[in-house]
Amino acid sequence: MRKPVIIGVGLTPVGEHWRLSLRDLAVEALLNAMEDAGVDKVDSLYVGNMASGSFVEQENLGALIADWAGLGNIPAVKVEAACASGGTAVQEGVKAVMSGLEDVVAVVGVEKMTDAWPSDATRYLAYAADAEWELFHGVSFVALNALTMRLYMKEYGYTEEDLALFAVNAHANGAKNPYAMFKKPITVETVMKSPYVANPLKLFDASPIADGAAAVIITTEEKAKEFVDKAKMVEVAGMGRAIDTINLANRKDLLFLKAAKVAAERAYKMAGVSVDDIDFFEVHDAFTIMAALSLESIGVAERGKGAMLAKEGQIAIDGDYPIQTLGGLKARGHPVGATGVYQTVEAVWQLRGEAPNQVPDAEIGLTQNIGGTGSNITVTILRRV
Amino acid sequence: MRKPVIIGVGLTPVGEHWRLSLRDLAVEALLNAMEDAGVDKVDSLYVGNMASGSFVEQENLGALIADWAGLGNIPAVKVEAACASGGTAVQEGVKAVMSGLEDVVAVVGVEKMTDAWPSDATRYLAYAADAEWELFHGVSFVALNALTMRLYMKEYGYTEEDLALFAVNAHANGAKNPYAMFKKPITVETVMKSPYVANPLKLFDASPIADGAAAVIITTEEKAKEFVDKAKMVEVAGMGRAIDTINLANRKDLLFLKAAKVAAERAYKMAGVSVDDIDFFEVHDAFTIMAALSLESIGVAERGKGAMLAKEGQIAIDGDYPIQTLGGLKARGHPVGATGVYQTVEAVWQLRGEAPNQVPDAEIGLTQNIGGTGSNITVTILRRV
Repeated sequence: MRKPVIIGVGLTPVGEHWRLSLRDLAVEALLNAMEDAGVDKVDSLYVGNMASGSFVEQENLGALIADWAGLGNIPAVKVEAACASGGTAVQEGVKAVMSGLEDVVAVVGVEKMTDAWPSDATRYLAYAADAEWELFHGVSFVALNALTMRLYMKEYGYTEEDLALFAVNAHANGAKNPYAMFKKPITVETVMKSPYVANPLKLFDASPIADGAAAVIITTEEKAKEFVDKAKMVEVAGMGRAIDTINLANRKDLLFLKAAKVAAERAYKMAGVSVDDIDFFEVHDAFTIMAALSLESIGVAERGKGAMLAKEGQIAIDGDYPIQTLGGLKARGHPVGATGVYQTVEAVWQLRGEAPNQVPDAEIGLTQNIGGTGSNITVTILRRV
Repeated sequence: MRKPVIIGVGLTPVGEHWRLSLRDLAVEALLNAMEDAGVDKVDSLYVGNMASGSFVEQENLGALIADWAGLGNIPAVKVEAACASGGTAVQEGVKAVMSGLEDVVAVVGVEKMTDAWPSDATRYLAYAADAEWELFHGVSFVALNALTMRLYMKEYGYTEEDLALFAVNAHANGAKNPYAMFKKPITVETVMKSPYVANPLKLFDASPIADGAAAVIITTEEKAKEFVDKAKMVEVAGMGRAIDTINLANRKDLLFLKAAKVAAERAYKMAGVSVDDIDFFEVHDAFTIMAALSLESIGVAERGKGAMLAKEGQIAIDGDYPIQTLGGLKARGHPVGATGVYQTVEAVWQLRGEAPNQVPDAEIGLTQNIGGTGSNITVTILRRV
């Protein structure tokens, strides 16, 4: 099998980009990544995006972005896996390289969310859940996460303050990331004083609606040498992906992300590593509860102990299990289809030793990207070459 | 490289499925294909779909369909390339098999269009064009095709009656396909008497809005032997895909589908065949004009001679270049994201010798699937094993 290597990364700041359209953001991130990799053309393009049809009335993103980036008559496609679209696009890009059909592949994740009315944005995001068996009955996507949070607190005896610690950690790290949407540290009090969105979930438990794009360039280890020095190469050592029931009512266990477990096991096996070998974790904290569940399902914490890691300070940049090292979804921001690619870019920074909030001597990093309420999850393991 | 082989196909009739939802259609086609292949599980799922978010307010189709088909915790993703989503999904499924990461891959194309108001459906379909530089100014997707048709007629001296022959051929063949939406032969007069949708393009120049799903199961030649006899195997011998400018105003040549040419050249090269080796062509006749342009750009006809093939009767089932052997988009119907997979299923039928409208001794077939106004095109070559 061909060994896939990331040789370039690019991104835009996450935020409310009123003067840029979806194509502007995607092209900026893409061209930055190509410049970083030292390539002036690519063999194909994968676009991670969740809901451009709804948000900006535009599909055919493969053609749109490849065309406007001046990439010529290449294959280009959009991949959608709800909020895991970005992580999935990265994995599909890797697969293209591994297939032997393409040598240099670009992946860009992009979402332009602020052009929609906020009420519509909430509606479009809910398309990640089961439209006929969940949304039809009036539940929102936030409400589904709030139900999970309440159950978690009840089952394991945690408080809202305990879960708030995930947001505090994310903001502490995001404050050092120039590309983050929120660069201001917060306290538990900030979270507790913020209004309930769906009780017990508060505004500061939730990641923001945002615009942004991030991109990576993937090639084979062999080919990588033509473009960059070894210091710039990061191997995609392992990857896994799995689905679970799309609606929560059919989920046998509401407090365990089985798809994350299956995806992580595949990724660990492919990379030949265990969870203890990993130096940092970019997990999917769309809501604080999802950070806790993610840590448990990928094997960092035992069941019910995810939030304990936050209480013990182990998730901090100098802890045993640093997470959200550049702010995570909560503080860097969550332009949904782009998020998995942002995680990848940030992991590459850490492994190259050039992160603005560096994990010392990071050699192996993990990214985990969730679509729906745990219904579509990617885990990717990156390693310094 | 691993040789990809299709071992099972399944589909639903194309039509207005008022009592079935998107998931019902997709699951039916998928399970039919699995039964045909004799597999009871698959390693991953690719879903071809253009605009489920807009049409039925549902994204995350990978999880939705894999979950409801009972496929377990597998990787599952939706791929979107406008109306070429189906053909693209097939190619991505092939790539997954070629990557060595997955052995048995399912691909399902699905679109549920009739749940939307017809005026909204027209709007959603237009998302395949450039929202900011075409649609914003009031042009519709049909109008873009009408402009192309008018230019083609003017440039090469064809009449509306000439182009109508593509629709007549499609209906003649569709009449023999039990899964086709329209099973009634028509005449040039039928087309000419139908109302203008966007002059010179009439209702019967256009493919219908429809619901449907089609699926294929892909594996390696080696693995195929475990499941089916050789008579059931069809090799994916070659494939290519390319984009072009998303908006027509930036296209240097309005009467030539460059993306189809590039895609076809890649596919011919990979398969080691030339256009003369191919026994039938399932091209993308969303509008009659696109059938003519497709034949010219993939090398079946010289420039300006595509419509001549129709006039000479060469596109009929007993002609030199049979096209739309089971009705094409015009008569079988065009549930957009499913279309490319329908074409694949029909080509497999022909190559197995089990088509309801059989091309005698068909050994090699070609499918060509277009997204946008020629901005994203797939060409796939299938061969009897």
